Amino acid sequence: MQINGKHYRTIWLKEGAEPTVQVIDQRRLPHALVIEDLNTPEDFVRAIREMHVRGAPLIGATAAYAVYNALYHAPLDKRRLGKYVRDTVDVLLNTRPTAVNLSYALERMMKAIEPAEEISEMVQVALQTAEAITEESIEHCKAIGEHGLDIIQKISKKKKGEPVNILTHCNAGWLACIDHGTATAPIYAAHDAGIPVHVWVDETRPRNQGANLTAYELLQHGVPHTVITDSAGGHLMQHGMVDLVLVGSDRTTLRGDVANKIGTYLKALAARDNRVPFYAALPSSSFDWSLNDGLKEIPIEERDPDEVRYVHGWFNGKIYKVLITPQDTKAANYAFDVTPAALVTGLITERGVCRASKRGIQKLFPEAGK
Amino acid sequence: MQINGKHYRTIWLKEGAEPTVQVIDQRRLPHALVIEDLNTPEDFVRAIREMHVRGAPLIGATAAYAVYNALYHAPLDKRRLGKYVRDTVDVLLNTRPTAVNLSYALERMMKAIEPAEEISEMVQVALQTAEAITEESIEHCKAIGEHGLDIIQKISKKKKGEPVNILTHCNAGWLACIDHGTATAPIYAAHDAGIPVHVWVDETRPRNQGANLTAYELLQHGVPHTVITDSAGGHLMQHGMVDLVLVGSDRTTLRGDVANKIGTYLKALAARDNRVPFYAALPSSSFDWSLNDGLKEIPIEERDPDEVRYVHGWFNGKIYKVLITPQDTKAANYAFDVTPAALVTGLITERGVCRASKRGIQKLFPEAGK
Repeated sequence: MQINGKHYRTIWLKEGAEPTVQVIDQRRLPHALVIEDLNTPEDFVRAIREMHVRGAPLIGATAAYAVYNALYHAPLDKRRLGKYVRDTVDVLLNTRPTAVNLSYALERMMKAIEPAEEISEMVQVALQTAEAITEESIEHCKAIGEHGLDIIQKISKKKKGEPVNILTHCNAGWLACIDHGTATAPIYAAHDAGIPVHVWVDETRPRNQGANLTAYELLQHGVPHTVITDSAGGHLMQHGMVDLVLVGSDRTTLRGDVANKIGTYLKALAARDNRVPFYAALPSSSFDWSLNDGLKEIPIEERDPDEVRYVHGWFNGKIYKVLITPQDTKAANYAFDVTPAALVTGLITERGVCRASKRGIQKLFPEAGK
Repeated sequence: MQINGKHYRTIWLKEGAEPTVQVIDQRRLPHALVIEDLNTPEDFVRAIREMHVRGAPLIGATAAYAVYNALYHAPLDKRRLGKYVRDTVDVLLNTRPTAVNLSYALERMMKAIEPAEEISEMVQVALQTAEAITEESIEHCKAIGEHGLDIIQKISKKKKGEPVNILTHCNAGWLACIDHGTATAPIYAAHDAGIPVHVWVDETRPRNQGANLTAYELLQHGVPHTVITDSAGGHLMQHGMVDLVLVGSDRTTLRGDVANKIGTYLKALAARDNRVPFYAALPSSSFDWSLNDGLKEIPIEERDPDEVRYVHGWFNGKIYKVLITPQDTKAANYAFDVTPAALVTGLITERGVCRASKRGIQKLFPEAGK
């Protein structure tokens, strides 16, 4: 994707400075574009936990590069190596409890390095695997865009070329991935194909990833959009102002329950009540086929209540953190919710679009739940 | 209600300084308690339009005092008086388009002053009527509290003394009224009767009346509460963490459709989906019996998009206004939505609790729609 006309990914190996990896520090967007060096395993852990990087696919890729980076810094003493690798992976696994891509990426990394005998070989394999995860992620997002494009195209035809109004929640954009995005991939594909679209961007409290990141992406790409509060979507749907809801997913169960940013469930309820199609776009790495009942089985991350009590914003060339509650008021900060499969019109994956049900998923992914 | 242990109302005549009226400038809460003098008709208009005062009942009372204040400043030339009064009322009517209390209060003021022959008599009658509207509002809120208390009491019995978890949206508290509040009146009544309650306070973007005002009220009154984002309520209801949703209403139609702060509809959908009772608490002055279909007939105020793009908060002893979107991103700011009667368990009014239907309303208010 483009920032000020230059092509970027969200994570890349720093040229000539192995094993340093570079990421965009997303906490500073949209106000400032800051490229951050991740030099040590601790840098990676902090970057994931404190959300310099976020979004399920990007978290997975960052964790993969973290393993590579850690191996580069590994002790040469082989007796200590096993524990060092396990500790590294454990710490990474616990940075963000809801995103399944984290465990997917880490398992794949572990499997890849296991046969390696020498530490230098492990480092090399780790780098190759991290890059493969990254490239695959880009391919998957691109494919999601193409499959989702069909849905938008059909609506556009019905509307006879009037702009298709798409509501999205949080940032399931290229900033959450490596490129293209998941929920945004069909939007970019449609826009690039000349189909007129307009995006309602939920600001997505408490961290405002919609207002900060999705709006930034769409602006940079020239896609018409309007930021709204998280409360506004229901009203818009009641009045026929939304043709399609497109969100991402941090974890999707075998029966099609979708864990995504807190508030997604409310949008799904409004979509059903107003017969607006509601799709979740996700790479298959976001599936967790070991789970069925998302409401009961997916752990929901509770984050720092100060994310609710304070808002970050731009004033006079600086980011300020301002208090919006009384000083002594408590807050709670549930980061995700689960949208039951019954509210989901379909899942857009790299292999195509399927119904949010075990049968639907198994049609595209025969390996699911086996 | 109490602030720092001292009893306050939200509006009162400034002692010995007629026709000046004092209000709490609610834009500064919870960070600073600022009492503002309203000296001229322009002061009143600004106070309502720019939301120094807000909340349907308080808007009505402020408009009533505004008429009194305007008459005090009226031209003595009787030929110009009629136009002056009509212009005053017109300007006031257009300050906030959704709140029906505004037209209710203004109509009542006009009716009261109509028979008066001398300007001095008009001023006197206007003051009496404004004070009557204010006192009645307090009585109505108190009665709403008593009727709503029964509902909380029943839930408390079922929960065997475990705290009753009540979710509320926006501020339908005493700060929205003169005293007690509407949605909060049952909460205060329950708390004061020794029933353990805990309130989930929706922050209520974009103006954060929940985080700013409801939290402030509850804190001052010692009621346990937790501020959450507007997106969190669905998740809480899915997990049995909400026993009751209690909201206010800015306008209620004859068939029981409820216009209230944007996002109320989404909470009502989640309440239905999780079988949580959903009540709107309102004085009968908030009914608009000339309307039936709230979705089609209630005009929804669109406010300044900058309320979405910027957040006000406290930093280092000052209120800052920080930007949360890219500088060039557009926003939309629909201030209210309509919750269809089918989603409303009941209406809590000063005359008792009724179903949200024409029949239910007419049982308590035989005069409705006649």
